[in-house]
Amino acid sequence: MGQETWAIGVDLGGTKVEVAVVDAGGKILQRLKQPTHVETGPERIMAAIAGMVRQLQDRGPQTPPAGVGVGVAGQVNAATGVVRFAPNLNWREVPLQDRLQTALTLPVVVTNDVRAATWGEWRHGAGQGAQDLICLFIGTGIGGGVVSGGRMLEGCTNTAGELGHITTDLNGPPCTCGHRGCLEALAGGWAIARRAREAIRDAPAAGKAFLQAAGLKEPVAPEDVNARVVAAAARAHDPLARILVDEVARALIAGTVSLVNAFNPCRLILGGGVMQGLPELTERIEAGIRGAALNAAIEGLEVLPARLKGDAGVVGAATLAIRSFAP
Amino acid sequence: MGQETWAIGVDLGGTKVEVAVVDAGGKILQRLKQPTHVETGPERIMAAIAGMVRQLQDRGPQTPPAGVGVGVAGQVNAATGVVRFAPNLNWREVPLQDRLQTALTLPVVVTNDVRAATWGEWRHGAGQGAQDLICLFIGTGIGGGVVSGGRMLEGCTNTAGELGHITTDLNGPPCTCGHRGCLEALAGGWAIARRAREAIRDAPAAGKAFLQAAGLKEPVAPEDVNARVVAAAARAHDPLARILVDEVARALIAGTVSLVNAFNPCRLILGGGVMQGLPELTERIEAGIRGAALNAAIEGLEVLPARLKGDAGVVGAATLAIRSFAP
Repeated sequence: MGQETWAIGVDLGGTKVEVAVVDAGGKILQRLKQPTHVETGPERIMAAIAGMVRQLQDRGPQTPPAGVGVGVAGQVNAATGVVRFAPNLNWREVPLQDRLQTALTLPVVVTNDVRAATWGEWRHGAGQGAQDLICLFIGTGIGGGVVSGGRMLEGCTNTAGELGHITTDLNGPPCTCGHRGCLEALAGGWAIARRAREAIRDAPAAGKAFLQAAGLKEPVAPEDVNARVVAAAARAHDPLARILVDEVARALIAGTVSLVNAFNPCRLILGGGVMQGLPELTERIEAGIRGAALNAAIEGLEVLPARLKGDAGVVGAATLAIRSFAP
Repeated sequence: MGQETWAIGVDLGGTKVEVAVVDAGGKILQRLKQPTHVETGPERIMAAIAGMVRQLQDRGPQTPPAGVGVGVAGQVNAATGVVRFAPNLNWREVPLQDRLQTALTLPVVVTNDVRAATWGEWRHGAGQGAQDLICLFIGTGIGGGVVSGGRMLEGCTNTAGELGHITTDLNGPPCTCGHRGCLEALAGGWAIARRAREAIRDAPAAGKAFLQAAGLKEPVAPEDVNARVVAAAARAHDPLARILVDEVARALIAGTVSLVNAFNPCRLILGGGVMQGLPELTERIEAGIRGAALNAAIEGLEVLPARLKGDAGVVGAATLAIRSFAP
């Protein structure tokens, strides 16, 4: 496959590990996916990742890879590549970079998964060419990445971009982080599910219609009600679902107005499962921002849906490896 | 005065112009202050500034100044030094940098006044040595500046740092910006005054005690009630004033938690008239942040009062000039 530059990107989450061969253009040439066996502990998981990387290495271009990039759902020490804390993996202080480097004899760079996805969107997705952008990923949780003046912001302890935990309603409902009224506690997938369950409980007749509109058959257990169900019912024009989606839109507008005023990005890129389930939100959020953010802060602003979807993590991790290690 | 490096800093606001000779260590060697005669228009004001600069130039060190830095209360085009919009000066599209350069035959750099004050605190105040910091100035309005990875954030159209307009209560009261529930609409000086007037109107007996505690003699006009009065009554342990200050503290905690989670600074520096009037707020805000922000985001965090007070603007503007023009 010639002299091209390429790297291996790893997206390590609590449910699956994905590994891909990615070229310098951000194209995925090969990929492997496995469930993450969290219960087996970090050593086994790292061995499994090393095995997947080796398998793909043999299938990649003939030139050696620039290196390996890993995006992990947790807090990472940027200097050492140690995963400090990854709640979904139940990891604390795991020297991921060192272990993989030793196992693979390849250079390895480790970053947070949302940061990796931001690298992907920036270099090969909706952020291409921008020097100032925010990626906001609205899934079960809400996370983000910020590029300002052509640089990815890291912050003091490498946790810049926890955009799900900006206080959007200081009287709002509790968040999993311990605080209340965070953007995530109003518009993250888990919060949408919580709100839907409350609404169904408080208004049983409307709730029944909602569940029917979503295509759920009774009896429905509370845990069957999630953001996906809300999106399905909203698409079927269920009135309760529309109210819930209106609340989500309102929270996302308030939160993104904060981000636009604070960071003044040229592009705001919206991704994640909630946005994929309710794609019309992009337009609503953009209209809301244009009505509520400071004029000076939106002059250069474009609001765009994320482009790489589930591939942003592996593409971004590989992109970071190429940037870090390619000659 | 020898071979030292120095510059002239200008702080141009809607009520006064201050011009100072500042050395490379951030020390003010000479200064001049005049009221801003907004009604005379930009040409006269620029001529007055040039006159003040010339006067000080003669009194500065014998070496020529590195240049002139201007912080202006408005939106500035960073590339051209044109003041795009300055509501308090009633300026639109004023080529401040060009005019001063021509008048003074010195290099001139123009920035926003809050950005200038952030430069001052960063290089010569409470931010010295930090690579990641936020300055939040809580005065009549609320503004800020952000340094991340050793660089001052500018944003897409040079308005990054509008930290007074992060939505802190999406159901909150209207803000002067047109939106509602902005941090400034809850904790800026004008909002504190609004809230105090409402409280006095709604609870006349408590209001009477409040005005007495603040040392105001009746009859008191609504416009006599301002943030300074609230601070005075709170210092005199007036119960209504304490409630108002508690509300302000709560809003500032919610807002600064957002900033800490989003930017992950090593230092959060709190300045401005409201903080000077209620200095105990610094500790309360710090305690609130430590209780509510993400653990990972506060590991490296210090919360400090601003140090340069009213001098931050001229010192910062001169510092930016030295940085931009000194050999």
